[in-house]
Amino acid sequence: MKILVLNGPNLNLLGSREPGVYGNQTLADMMAGLQDYGRARMIEVEWCQSNEEGALVTRIGESRGRYDGLIINPAAYTHTSIALRDALQAVALPCVEVHLSNIHSREVFRHTSLTAAACVGQICGFGAMSYQLALDALGAHLKK
Amino acid sequence: MKILVLNGPNLNLLGSREPGVYGNQTLADMMAGLQDYGRARMIEVEWCQSNEEGALVTRIGESRGRYDGLIINPAAYTHTSIALRDALQAVALPCVEVHLSNIHSREVFRHTSLTAAACVGQICGFGAMSYQLALDALGAHLKK
Amino acid sequence: MKILVLNGPNLNLLGSREPGVYGNQTLADMMAGLQDYGRARMIEVEWCQSNEEGALVTRIGESRGRYDGLIINPAAYTHTSIALRDALQAVALPCVEVHLSNIHSREVFRHTSLTAAACVGQICGFGAMSYQLALDALGAHLKK
Amino acid sequence: MKILVLNGPNLNLLGSREPGVYGNQTLADMMAGLQDYGRARMIEVEWCQSNEEGALVTRIGESRGRYDGLIINPAAYTHTSIALRDALQAVALPCVEVHLSNIHSREVFRHTSLTAAACVGQICGFGAMSYQLALDALGAHLKK
Amino acid sequence: MKILVLNGPNLNLLGSREPGVYGNQTLADMMAGLQDYGRARMIEVEWCQSNEEGALVTRIGESRGRYDGLIINPAAYTHTSIALRDALQAVALPCVEVHLSNIHSREVFRHTSLTAAACVGQICGFGAMSYQLALDALGAHLKK
Amino acid sequence: MKILVLNGPNLNLLGSREPGVYGNQTLADMMAGLQDYGRARMIEVEWCQSNEEGALVTRIGESRGRYDGLIINPAAYTHTSIALRDALQAVALPCVEVHLSNIHSREVFRHTSLTAAACVGQICGFGAMSYQLALDALGAHLKK
Amino acid sequence: MKILVLNGPNLNLLGSREPGVYGNQTLADMMAGLQDYGRARMIEVEWCQSNEEGALVTRIGESRGRYDGLIINPAAYTHTSIALRDALQAVALPCVEVHLSNIHSREVFRHTSLTAAACVGQICGFGAMSYQLALDALGAHLKK
Amino acid sequence: MKILVLNGPNLNLLGSREPGVYGNQTLADMMAGLQDYGRARMIEVEWCQSNEEGALVTRIGESRGRYDGLIINPAAYTHTSIALRDALQAVALPCVEVHLSNIHSREVFRHTSLTAAACVGQICGFGAMSYQLALDALGAHLKK
Amino acid sequence: MKILVLNGPNLNLLGSREPGVYGNQTLADMMAGLQDYGRARMIEVEWCQSNEEGALVTRIGESRGRYDGLIINPAAYTHTSIALRDALQAVALPCVEVHLSNIHSREVFRHTSLTAAACVGQICGFGAMSYQLALDALGAHLKK
Amino acid sequence: MKILVLNGPNLNLLGSREPGVYGNQTLADMMAGLQDYGRARMIEVEWCQSNEEGALVTRIGESRGRYDGLIINPAAYTHTSIALRDALQAVALPCVEVHLSNIHSREVFRHTSLTAAACVGQICGFGAMSYQLALDALGAHLKK
Amino acid sequence: MKILVLNGPNLNLLGSREPGVYGNQTLADMMAGLQDYGRARMIEVEWCQSNEEGALVTRIGESRGRYDGLIINPAAYTHTSIALRDALQAVALPCVEVHLSNIHSREVFRHTSLTAAACVGQICGFGAMSYQLALDALGAHLKK
Amino acid sequence: MKILVLNGPNLNLLGSREPGVYGNQTLADMMAGLQDYGRARMIEVEWCQSNEEGALVTRIGESRGRYDGLIINPAAYTHTSIALRDALQAVALPCVEVHLSNIHSREVFRHTSLTAAACVGQICGFGAMSYQLALDALGAHLKK
Repeated sequence: MKILVLNGPNLNLLGSREPGVYGNQTLADMMAGLQDYGRARMIEVEWCQSNEEGALVTRIGESRGRYDGLIINPAAYTHTSIALRDALQAVALPCVEVHLSNIHSREVFRHTSLTAAACVGQICGFGAMSYQLALDALGAHLKK
Repeated sequence: MKILVLNGPNLNLLGSREPGVYGNQTLADMMAGLQDYGRARMIEVEWCQSNEEGALVTRIGESRGRYDGLIINPAAYTHTSIALRDALQAVALPCVEVHLSNIHSREVFRHTSLTAAACVGQICGFGAMSYQLALDALGAHLKK
Repeated sequence: MKILVLNGPNLNLLGSREPGVYGNQTLADMMAGLQDYGRARMIEVEWCQSNEEGALVTRIGESRGRYDGLIINPAAYTHTSIALRDALQAVALPCVEVHLSNIHSREVFRHTSLTAAACVGQICGFGAMSYQLALDALGAHLKK
Repeated sequence: MKILVLNGPNLNLLGSREPGVYGNQTLADMMAGLQDYGRARMIEVEWCQSNEEGALVTRIGESRGRYDGLIINPAAYTHTSIALRDALQAVALPCVEVHLSNIHSREVFRHTSLTAAACVGQICGFGAMSYQLALDALGAHLKK
Repeated sequence: MKILVLNGPNLNLLGSREPGVYGNQTLADMMAGLQDYGRARMIEVEWCQSNEEGALVTRIGESRGRYDGLIINPAAYTHTSIALRDALQAVALPCVEVHLSNIHSREVFRHTSLTAAACVGQICGFGAMSYQLALDALGAHLKK
Repeated sequence: MKILVLNGPNLNLLGSREPGVYGNQTLADMMAGLQDYGRARMIEVEWCQSNEEGALVTRIGESRGRYDGLIINPAAYTHTSIALRDALQAVALPCVEVHLSNIHSREVFRHTSLTAAACVGQICGFGAMSYQLALDALGAHLKK
Repeated sequence: MKILVLNGPNLNLLGSREPGVYGNQTLADMMAGLQDYGRARMIEVEWCQSNEEGALVTRIGESRGRYDGLIINPAAYTHTSIALRDALQAVALPCVEVHLSNIHSREVFRHTSLTAAACVGQICGFGAMSYQLALDALGAHLKK
Repeated sequence: MKILVLNGPNLNLLGSREPGVYGNQTLADMMAGLQDYGRARMIEVEWCQSNEEGALVTRIGESRGRYDGLIINPAAYTHTSIALRDALQAVALPCVEVHLSNIHSREVFRHTSLTAAACVGQICGFGAMSYQLALDALGAHLKK
Repeated sequence: MKILVLNGPNLNLLGSREPGVYGNQTLADMMAGLQDYGRARMIEVEWCQSNEEGALVTRIGESRGRYDGLIINPAAYTHTSIALRDALQAVALPCVEVHLSNIHSREVFRHTSLTAAACVGQICGFGAMSYQLALDALGAHLKK
Repeated sequence: MKILVLNGPNLNLLGSREPGVYGNQTLADMMAGLQDYGRARMIEVEWCQSNEEGALVTRIGESRGRYDGLIINPAAYTHTSIALRDALQAVALPCVEVHLSNIHSREVFRHTSLTAAACVGQICGFGAMSYQLALDALGAHLKK
Repeated sequence: MKILVLNGPNLNLLGSREPGVYGNQTLADMMAGLQDYGRARMIEVEWCQSNEEGALVTRIGESRGRYDGLIINPAAYTHTSIALRDALQAVALPCVEVHLSNIHSREVFRHTSLTAAACVGQICGFGAMSYQLALDALGAHLKK
Repeated sequence: MKILVLNGPNLNLLGSREPGVYGNQTLADMMAGLQDYGRARMIEVEWCQSNEEGALVTRIGESRGRYDGLIINPAAYTHTSIALRDALQAVALPCVEVHLSNIHSREVFRHTSLTAAACVGQICGFGAMSYQLALDALGAHLKK
């Protein structure tokens, strides 16, 4: 079982960006931890990060046949990107949306998600653990 | 570690209610499975269900000192209940909001949550597994 | 053929509440009249009234297998209760929504109905006769 | 007792138009059935149909002194015609609004009615029977 | 100088329609009075009334070359008719919009006008005198 | 018969302000013309101008017993002043609202009037003649 | 003179709930203080608290003939309950709405009140003293 | 293959109406050109024009069995007519919506279309050529 | 203890303005009564009234160091004045907002307050007594 | 005559993406077909596709002097990209917007276009033929 | 070159008002500094401050012929005053709008400006330096 | 002191794009002028331009430690990019937002800024000079 984790804009700054909100672990550390977590569950995890909406769209478009499922943290694009929503619907792979912070307790424009409607489900608010929960959820979903 | 799981309106109908959307497991079965899941992780799980907004408010109000954390599936009240939000803020116990279905792919009035802002995070779309993920998330949160 | 009539908040005050708007017949009188009306049409009518949203939800949830159809006057909950809408959708019994007054000529917040979308149809504006028309409509619907 | 039934745009297509939604009875059949239904109740029923908003307005304007009451199915004009609302208020005859389908479970722009505020009440969702229920309601209203 | 006065839906009911709001003079009387008023000012007044939005559109479309200016009381179509607005812009004759009642003190949906933007100005609230003031205004406008 | 004409903010700039929109007559000229117009009709006209919302409110408040009626051009305050609306309702003198330009063909925020609801009627779009028409309308209203 | 004080959801948690916002007096203490305050003014005070919207509706419905007036702190239901508004209008007893905190300086969804329109007036922002002021206001109102 | 082209309100004024926006060809010329264009492609073109919403509805309703497809330029009714939308859905003939001007670069109220949702597609902005493109599109659609 | 009471636009008309809504006591009488009421409680009361938003802003700006607290009835400016809100926040004196009538049962544009967010609390609906209650509330607040 | 066809996000997936909605022809096939179609009409067609909003903006910016006109299918960016709109306005080349599907019969957020206002016109709903129609329209436009 | 700087409501409180937000320099100091700054650039600076919307309107109206340009800090009136916008448009002098604080990071109702549309540009967020930047900008603008 | 100036989409077209609005200086010229301007003030200016939202996000993310402050002209992304706002908040460098044109006098969708809330301040409307003013403002800010 092989999974791609897509990380959206500014997540490359993790560890430095507003540590009070997002913690001080870097994205590479977090993804390495997730890969360990996946290995223990027989799930191979690849990951990428891009600040480009279009690069994320492209990566999703190429994922069919290469991966069994997707995890996406669209970050700021969650609330504005119809293109990502279309990409997820087009490849029709099971996807789980994650957020490090609880989007419902932040600014009003972060309370809704355009992309989640094209996913199996959404997990938000648990920091790095959001990804691990998403991996568990996706693994279980794929076994069905 | 002791946890209370609160289930909102119509969840007592699980197993019979729109099985195409919600599966055909009953709530009692699902909660029993969650208690087993918790036991294996050294977390004692109590649960309740009520169709009454006020009864849920009361149960939350009484939970301080009795439980270490809460999991809530507010169902229809997610989108309309300021009283539940106030209750969660008042007891100030860590809480995880769960939904069986992906609220973002249903009617527009189900896309936002009044209650999630008073929680640590939210998990939706994974059926019965949403609760297990919430238990993992809450357990990890409490250990911090 | 057996029907349950559910009456929502403040309908217990009928006869005393704003008689200029709602007439001065009590709910018990009105329901007794409806039972006579049903008997003459070979329809057994049971009824209940509750000011509790949750109690109405519960009653609807228990109605499958006990009744052939429902008539509901959700009163103030018409415009705010997603829980009642979910309950009606969950039991999937044919239901007719009724209102004593014409909701379209009252305050703007009474012009739309969240619950009617989960019903066969809606009848409003004819006082006690709204229930009798609903009974006729439901009887005919069930015979099809 | 003499009643005029006004039918709005596209109702002339009944029987051919989207039979899954509206059934396959023609309007003439339906109105003939209503006239029989009225005759048995000592109510004379006249009817007309027009696709023209203005023609319906005119017909309502001429109805005072000729009819004791009105039944109107304004169809698409329900949601857009202030002119029909004004006409109904101007003649001040008791009127019942009917719809074949349940307008509350269709597109959002069909959930509200500009014309119903100028009527005694509204009945929707029961196909041809909506008219019969309206006739009963109007007959009872006129006897008061 | 020759003027056409266009009267919209339900104005044929003047004298009978809600006399508390609109007075009890008929439209024919009112127009006859206006013709006298015009004659004294060397302005020939023709008038028409229609309940049909399209008939009014047609009449406006034919008015170029036949009249020097227009007065229009679009009644209910004031608030909904883009077609009338387009017609007035197309013929490009000076037009004055009139209303018998003060539209600003009635229902909210009567507070704005789609058609007035295609007119020289608007006069409302003075009953039959609104037309006379419009005639004075239009006469003066044409003399410029 | 004695009338007060109130002129709102920036009308003191008439003659210099955007002459393409408002003409190049000064307010004093225009008011002198109106006084002549009134004299010929046996109506004494007093006038004032203020850029102060509160000064206009005060002047209206003092007008009862001194004037038989009011004409007001609230200019920019038309769209924002609840205080002027309250003042007009408080003195309960018949008032006519005027505008030099056609407010319906300008910016959207000029399409509605808070103050007109407290007047007998409104006249807009006819330049200086708007005042003369208002005087005629008010004179006729007072004679009733 | 006999008064009923109704307290809405989560007010049972007073003293423990967000003491920074609501103080650390319990509701029972606060109500005992209010009863003393009333006794000194010859007003008998009964009180109740419920987290149930429907229970509050019921209690209001039963209050006619038993009490001379009502004080209500609807808490979270202030902003969402049409049922409470209907109940207050139905019993037609003078009622004063109170809030411990200043609802105008909290979240936007707390800035308006559905229930206050069915009351004599509203008092908010003065903690426990809000109730005493309400008692004074209600006492004076009843003496008129 | 036989096609009906329906032209909505004010299109009879083409050639005279705002030539800067719509050109100075008359509708008859334009339609004659379209008939030639169709003849060369073995498509018989009939056309009509009406300012009446209802007449257009009627014409659509009668088109089943007589025509293989429709082209409609609903003009002002594009943005307000649910009746035309219903008519197009009722006859279920393939239809192409056309506009002479680019509706997206005009007033905001012209940016959306109620009728296009009941069509195969929409073409706007190309003047008389919009009709020719629509004929090509419809011809190709029918051949499938 | 010394208090300033600020009264906004049109309150100078009290006693004459809409006595059905506001009673027939003059503002001077009402303020004299309030001064007596204050004297009995050892609170010196000064008052002013202005129809000018800016004059009220100025008076608030000068109040620091001269008064211990403020009572303000901003009347119409309640709903539109950011300047008054800024002034109250700038001086940072405790202030109580009062209204003679119940703003929640009047027009929708009176249901919210821009100024109350800069106050300790708000009291509305009790006529002249609103001021006395405000004085009690402010006195108690200052003693804390 | 030389034309550039710009294709937006996810159009590279054509042939695999939701074939029920978009057909199973690939974009390369479709563009090859369009080039043939153009060649027969003496129009040279170049094309590109990008998932990047900025890359499309860049390509448009470079098109002046290289192409005589543009065809753009902005896909998801249609509804959100002010940058594309600005780019089209900046180069001021005639452009035709196309969509494969009928955007008016999809989700509400696809009903309006930010980019079409900077184009000559828009064509939607005809699959691959939308491009051919656009080429015809653009060719004719350029010949004028 | 001679410039008038207009300061709106509450700016007279600078130095005392919320120093955390606005600093503790008084307006007189700030304006004296600006005059020095101007003198060094051969620009004569006059200034005024008023809490009165109307007084500011008047001052702007009188500025033509006396000044070469304007700088305005409309403070709270930025967001509500159509009268100031009209005044600026009427005198047609180049004007620069300034704000001490960054209006975009404060309450939502401060994010837009009614007055800036009548200015050359806007500068916000730099405290006293906002004025100096405005002077530079205006000086350069006038030299063109 | 070292500053990075970021220029958003379509600014590479400066000099050719709508010169009536934006002038005919190229971006390179403008930036060279700014570098001279900076050099005279001992501020080293680097600049970049990108049409890619993500590339701008990346550049901002890399700027910490390399620059003392930022100037950004986000152009079209001002109104839609949460990602840029997040990037600016993440690096927490002082930033000044600039616009060549006055965004407040253009289309409504350009009146608000998502990015300015993450900046020290905003300057708009002064063409190339906007950048120079921003440099002055940023220089002064950094010296504090």
